[in-house]
Amino acid sequence: MASVIPVSNSSMKSDRNTYIGKRFVHVKNPYLDSMDEDILYHLDLGTKTHNLPAMFGDVKFVCVGGSPNRMKAFALFMHKELGLEEAEEDIKDICAGTDRYCMYKTGPVLAISHGMGIPSISIMLHELIKLLHHARCSDVTIIRIGTSGGIGIAPGTVVITDIAVDSFFKPRFEQVILDNIVTRSTELDKELSEELFNCSKEIPNFPTLIGHTMCTYDFYEGQGRLDGALCSFSREKKLDCLKRAYKAGVRNIEMESTVFAAMCGLCGLKAAVVCVTLLDRLDCDQINLPHDVLVEYQQRPQLLISNFIRRRLGLCD
Amino acid sequence: MASVIPVSNSSMKSDRNTYIGKRFVHVKNPYLDSMDEDILYHLDLGTKTHNLPAMFGDVKFVCVGGSPNRMKAFALFMHKELGLEEAEEDIKDICAGTDRYCMYKTGPVLAISHGMGIPSISIMLHELIKLLHHARCSDVTIIRIGTSGGIGIAPGTVVITDIAVDSFFKPRFEQVILDNIVTRSTELDKELSEELFNCSKEIPNFPTLIGHTMCTYDFYEGQGRLDGALCSFSREKKLDCLKRAYKAGVRNIEMESTVFAAMCGLCGLKAAVVCVTLLDRLDCDQINLPHDVLVEYQQRPQLLISNFIRRRLGLCD
Repeated sequence: MASVIPVSNSSMKSDRNTYIGKRFVHVKNPYLDSMDEDILYHLDLGTKTHNLPAMFGDVKFVCVGGSPNRMKAFALFMHKELGLEEAEEDIKDICAGTDRYCMYKTGPVLAISHGMGIPSISIMLHELIKLLHHARCSDVTIIRIGTSGGIGIAPGTVVITDIAVDSFFKPRFEQVILDNIVTRSTELDKELSEELFNCSKEIPNFPTLIGHTMCTYDFYEGQGRLDGALCSFSREKKLDCLKRAYKAGVRNIEMESTVFAAMCGLCGLKAAVVCVTLLDRLDCDQINLPHDVLVEYQQRPQLLISNFIRRRLGLCD
Repeated sequence: MASVIPVSNSSMKSDRNTYIGKRFVHVKNPYLDSMDEDILYHLDLGTKTHNLPAMFGDVKFVCVGGSPNRMKAFALFMHKELGLEEAEEDIKDICAGTDRYCMYKTGPVLAISHGMGIPSISIMLHELIKLLHHARCSDVTIIRIGTSGGIGIAPGTVVITDIAVDSFFKPRFEQVILDNIVTRSTELDKELSEELFNCSKEIPNFPTLIGHTMCTYDFYEGQGRLDGALCSFSREKKLDCLKRAYKAGVRNIEMESTVFAAMCGLCGLKAAVVCVTLLDRLDCDQINLPHDVLVEYQQRPQLLISNFIRRRLGLCD
């Protein structure tokens, strides 16, 4: 594991005591610190081209989500909620040089998009974790906010994940390393999920629960949808599978939580997954909510995280 | 399997002979045709809100690639190459209502972005294949153009995939359906790849080869990179694995080809994968090409596909 406290940096040495008790981001790669330069290719950032500690050193909250527009909306919302002085127009996409991901920063909050699916979020997480390491960030909390399909719960419910499970309802992430399979834990931070759940209680008309989240590699066949280009199973088989998932504790289905939990866990980041459900998969497969309802539902995880961050920063009444 | 020839449509009946010998897109889902409406959620299109046959009925070539900007650039390039009359400004993102994917159309050419990784391209392909079915498209050729890491070949080489293999060098795609694993073939269209290879010979200084393409779920650990946030193997293990891949016929590595080959094959679409290599993974892991070289390399698959389409349309000298 690479050392994360820059002991050779004199500006750090003089202020050494402030590091006591701080929780740094661990990269677990012995090769990293010997690299002359680290190009974070998909973020269009690098250790030689950017002063990462100056740009990101104060980050305490990282919020990630699939959609670039939604992450921009979240950053602008947080900016308003934190009452920061900087003009809204100054919140620009830090990764504008690439169209793979978008990144916005307001005060101690960093918002990044990750696209859809495990491979897409995994590329972003590798480069984000290296970024936080290079920037010497400490005590970082990371939260994925997103949308999902619910099982047996009303659309609009916010699910805080206690543990992410795979398509076989197992709490594991299978990572292929070279041509071997390594199994990793997908547990999330218990205290953090409870803190988030407590925050949800303060918001009126905000249905929230803690449950297992199933993470699949596919939106159609992998989630038992009857409306894909390919469908080889019956409605009965679909319902049987979803009911077994419910029985195993699964309350929603999305496509990124297992690798997110596994990587954040390994790198010492306190992590949570907060997704709103857009439909009950026991009732239907297509997302056909009226536009205004869809927009309101999608804002719910943002509202909860905003409340949580404001509470953490002592900005709540 | 749903019937794809709309026999009940009178405008079709009167001109029935023109369908002889035409190759339609197969959706393999018995539920689809009984749906009152099909909302292609991630494309922001639908059968009730859009006249899909009028919008897409003339599509003959579909090009897909990871980056939205690159697919827009390709559409504008094709527009120029085809000498179409429509103003360039009229080529607008058809999926502008969503930020999940971008889609551009110029004449018979449709260009769509698919993000990064198997799950991301798989969502797009389900909805694209349904779109082509609803639009009653026939004789469609689909080509993925992209970037990749090479193995044992010079950066800038264009690899036309004969077969996509998984992380274990096997020519298969493992699809989870409900909670079962189904193995699918990843063969691509042999005639099409040879036709593309012949096209490449007409372009000066255009290194091209036909070979196996390895498709992984991860850019860092899954491709044996030593520069991720996590790395638990040695340089020797990495090189050993890449050399075994080379010996098995693999010439480049990317993250979408297996599911692309599997789904297109099942749905009767003649498909090809054409990726340029940005580095030789036996030499390095980081992509650090000068910007202008990177841009020129990224344009190579576009140039080849443009030549191919112009030849098919009889527009070449």
